[in-house]
Amino acid sequence: MRNLTEENLTDAVLASLAACGDARLKDVMTSLFRHLHAFVREIEPTPEEWFAGIRFLTETGKMCDDKRQEFILLSDTWGVSMLVDAINNRKQAGATESSVLGPFYVDGAPEKNTGADLAPDEGPGVTVRGKVRTPDGRPLANATLDVWQTAPNGLYHMQDAGQDEYHLCGKVRTAADGSYRFRTLKPVSYSIPTDGTVGKWLGWVGRHPYRPAHIHFIVSAPGCRPVVTQLFTEGDAYLESDAVFAVKNSLVVKYEPAGGEWTVDHDFVLEPAVA
Amino acid sequence: MRNLTEENLTDAVLASLAACGDARLKDVMTSLFRHLHAFVREIEPTPEEWFAGIRFLTETGKMCDDKRQEFILLSDTWGVSMLVDAINNRKQAGATESSVLGPFYVDGAPEKNTGADLAPDEGPGVTVRGKVRTPDGRPLANATLDVWQTAPNGLYHMQDAGQDEYHLCGKVRTAADGSYRFRTLKPVSYSIPTDGTVGKWLGWVGRHPYRPAHIHFIVSAPGCRPVVTQLFTEGDAYLESDAVFAVKNSLVVKYEPAGGEWTVDHDFVLEPAVA
Ligand SMILES: [Fe+2]
Ligand SMILES: [Fe+2]
Repeated sequence: MRNLTEENLTDAVLASLAACGDARLKDVMTSLFRHLHAFVREIEPTPEEWFAGIRFLTETGKMCDDKRQEFILLSDTWGVSMLVDAINNRKQAGATESSVLGPFYVDGAPEKNTGADLAPDEGPGVTVRGKVRTPDGRPLANATLDVWQTAPNGLYHMQDAGQDEYHLCGKVRTAADGSYRFRTLKPVSYSIPTDGTVGKWLGWVGRHPYRPAHIHFIVSAPGCRPVVTQLFTEGDAYLESDAVFAVKNSLVVKYEPAGGEWTVDHDFVLEPAVA
Repeated sequence: MRNLTEENLTDAVLASLAACGDARLKDVMTSLFRHLHAFVREIEPTPEEWFAGIRFLTETGKMCDDKRQEFILLSDTWGVSMLVDAINNRKQAGATESSVLGPFYVDGAPEKNTGADLAPDEGPGVTVRGKVRTPDGRPLANATLDVWQTAPNGLYHMQDAGQDEYHLCGKVRTAADGSYRFRTLKPVSYSIPTDGTVGKWLGWVGRHPYRPAHIHFIVSAPGCRPVVTQLFTEGDAYLESDAVFAVKNSLVVKYEPAGGEWTVDHDFVLEPAVA
């Protein structure tokens, strides 16, 4: 811990964790120090570059408040959120694949029975319907589909003073036969917020801020492992370049025209809960 | 960029930099993504652990203001600042070694001639004296020693409403023969600020927040490469466990008793400026 040089500094920083009594934290910090120092050694930042990084992180923190989480957005656009999602959701074949929660979920949406309309008097609408079931086909009664999505202006209710709280949100319950059905608006592709550091950074690296249209879901049922996921719209222009890397082929659904609106048929498949 | 799995996600994130027109930024981001994703793959964070990290970064940003830079403090305590310092200050043998700037430097301290007293009417004091010279012994007239340190309460002037601006700071000029001399207070070991995320984190990993007593310097002279450094006090209890890993043996100096105060003799050796 003294007379440290480029050669032995990382070892000293690792050794400084010797008194850490939390074994998991010690493992996390050991790995973080190894990778962070390796990154610094690889890029050899100038003091100015290092300070630009400090400023970027500081500004990112300053953007955060009770309605905005810029570090989650950064994690999303850097593919970290989807990586954490993938690691935590290794699934058996046939089970519904997961996707990121995103920064716009707020628990507490109103409970709805199957057949509910999340957008009465608004259109054009889509009826989403199907079953919630197990991989071996057993229907799941009393499952919950916690649903949220943007309005046609590309904003979620809490981003937009013009929308009621929980607009286009609801916790839809399945019927006794595991079936569910709800009507909502056809979702639109939208830009993630670009007025913060994430927007600046996307500009620097030449990336666009758009996400393909999607409806968010948390599907849960007694005795089953819940899944956080999204259903994407077939044909959307951003399916191949989602700003947060969240598209999976099994989650892309077809909007079938039906009486001036659309229908989407999709089953959600939940694995048994991990013991 | 679609149907990404644990296996191919990192490649897709790297490929998303294809349109980045800034070659340096592209290299930096490529290295950052590789190491950050490797870290995540190694520790496999739970969603709760990932969110704890998000919250930690957010709170760190919230601690920052015009007098406090918690991300610099984090970089310091994780050894990153000294690593960046080492990489940017590879020196020829004999040249004064560098150390971290730290978060408490403010440019604009008053200009002083050699012989100045930075702490008139305060004691116990130390007279620091020596030469500023080149590695081959040529004295450097008109060199500047930009000096700053804590008061005996362990606080820098900008941390402490009880101190005048630039208390214990000064830009001391060398004489024609390259010699310098100034009187200041004997520095004390001090705690880095512990009321933010860095203090919390030090507690979690069982580390103390103390730095060995030191005087900060930026030494510069026309035609020479400036050095940002610190002089540490021989015998200090924290020389072996500096919270920011900044101690180098060549920067540890002896305080010799002299008339109820002390003297320190130390030469600063500057390399020629890089062309
Ligand atoms: Fe979304
Ligand atoms: Fe200091």
